[in-house]
Amino acid sequence: MKPLLALALALVAAAPALAQDVTRHRIPNSDFPIARAVEVPAGRTTVYVSGAVPPVQDANAPATSIARFGDTRTQTVNTLRGIERTLRDLNLTHGDVVKMQVFLVGDPDRGGRMDFEGFMAGYREFYGTAAQPNLPARSVMAVAGLVNPGWLVEIEVTAVRP
Amino acid sequence: MKPLLALALALVAAAPALAQDVTRHRIPNSDFPIARAVEVPAGRTTVYVSGAVPPVQDANAPATSIARFGDTRTQTVNTLRGIERTLRDLNLTHGDVVKMQVFLVGDPDRGGRMDFEGFMAGYREFYGTAAQPNLPARSVMAVAGLVNPGWLVEIEVTAVRP
Amino acid sequence: MKPLLALALALVAAAPALAQDVTRHRIPNSDFPIARAVEVPAGRTTVYVSGAVPPVQDANAPATSIARFGDTRTQTVNTLRGIERTLRDLNLTHGDVVKMQVFLVGDPDRGGRMDFEGFMAGYREFYGTAAQPNLPARSVMAVAGLVNPGWLVEIEVTAVRP
Repeated sequence: MKPLLALALALVAAAPALAQDVTRHRIPNSDFPIARAVEVPAGRTTVYVSGAVPPVQDANAPATSIARFGDTRTQTVNTLRGIERTLRDLNLTHGDVVKMQVFLVGDPDRGGRMDFEGFMAGYREFYGTAAQPNLPARSVMAVAGLVNPGWLVEIEVTAVRP
Repeated sequence: MKPLLALALALVAAAPALAQDVTRHRIPNSDFPIARAVEVPAGRTTVYVSGAVPPVQDANAPATSIARFGDTRTQTVNTLRGIERTLRDLNLTHGDVVKMQVFLVGDPDRGGRMDFEGFMAGYREFYGTAAQPNLPARSVMAVAGLVNPGWLVEIEVTAVRP
Repeated sequence: MKPLLALALALVAAAPALAQDVTRHRIPNSDFPIARAVEVPAGRTTVYVSGAVPPVQDANAPATSIARFGDTRTQTVNTLRGIERTLRDLNLTHGDVVKMQVFLVGDPDRGGRMDFEGFMAGYREFYGTAAQPNLPARSVMAVAGLVNPGWLVEIEVTAVRP
């Protein structure tokens, strides 16, 4: 083989794996709709999205009330719709999300515990569906508060370009 | 075109985008000083920095008191100065930060709510200035506590090498 | 130099640094077992692992009790063992972890403060040992709660393929 050709072939081997897929590892023996881990090969563009919060749902409710933004399920759906718009503006979709962190605030109507079931109901509209089966690596926690006391939900995602 | 030249040109196209810029997407119709999303092209070195906490401000105050570390604004400025030193030691600056997470503790002097305005006042000294216009993707939340009860602020950043 | 050779050499210089090491920057003048920052060169595969929580320790204890999962140290060790299994299934080890976030819940037996010492005792079994000296960039915080009220520990790691 000509040295230059050998060099070129070596470069092909070393080049970033543009064609390589993101691998979403399933949780063994579980159908819970998150990935156990998501593997992003070299050569991908990473998009870090700022934490997203819910839009106003009821403009007549007081500015810092939960009623203004809705319950946890409503805030989850509206926040994920907002993320969807952000991703769309960047030519991405929820299917490109590889990592998600969810920050929930305790619901006074549930003794101050976070409404995890309400969050999951909203989440399942966007992840693990027939139309959008791609699952992110995810962490969920209750935080002590968000910037607006009416917010029960903040969601931060990281995506990679397909 | 000669095959080898074609191969070389294909490799140029596939090579990591060393010259490609980090893209900081603005929030539409907003001058709030965070990025809606930050896009890091392939070929960049990522630097994950450990969560930074404030240094002692008043050594005469009790070891776990807020007075020892200052109010939220003071702790924010001092923590960001510490991050600045860490970045400088690695030949980086705040302008290379692509992602930030801010963990605030509720201030007893504010009924236990986080002092978001105090945090923002400190943050604006380092981000979105004429000298340093680069904005990170960011999430802010109140946590239930940090390791030292006197700490009201922990900030974690991720940077990329220019 | 022939133009094509020059191009090929330029490509070598620009190629992803597959052989380049992850750099773990130590905290100056400290033996605290975390990295000040961890630097991941281009060309690496990133593995985002979902937040891990502790397995059941005492199946006879109530489903949402702390007794069911153990104290903070026990939950930390068991959670890190679970992460170890996940990493092993992906041909990775704790030594490949570059970033860690730790979410602790306040322990009612400690006046609601997080048991940071208990966490550290568990952490030190896995990180900064003779057998496994690699340290991650890390942030630790107390959150208001996790999905199961018996959980005192959630740990999220990001690793890179060696």
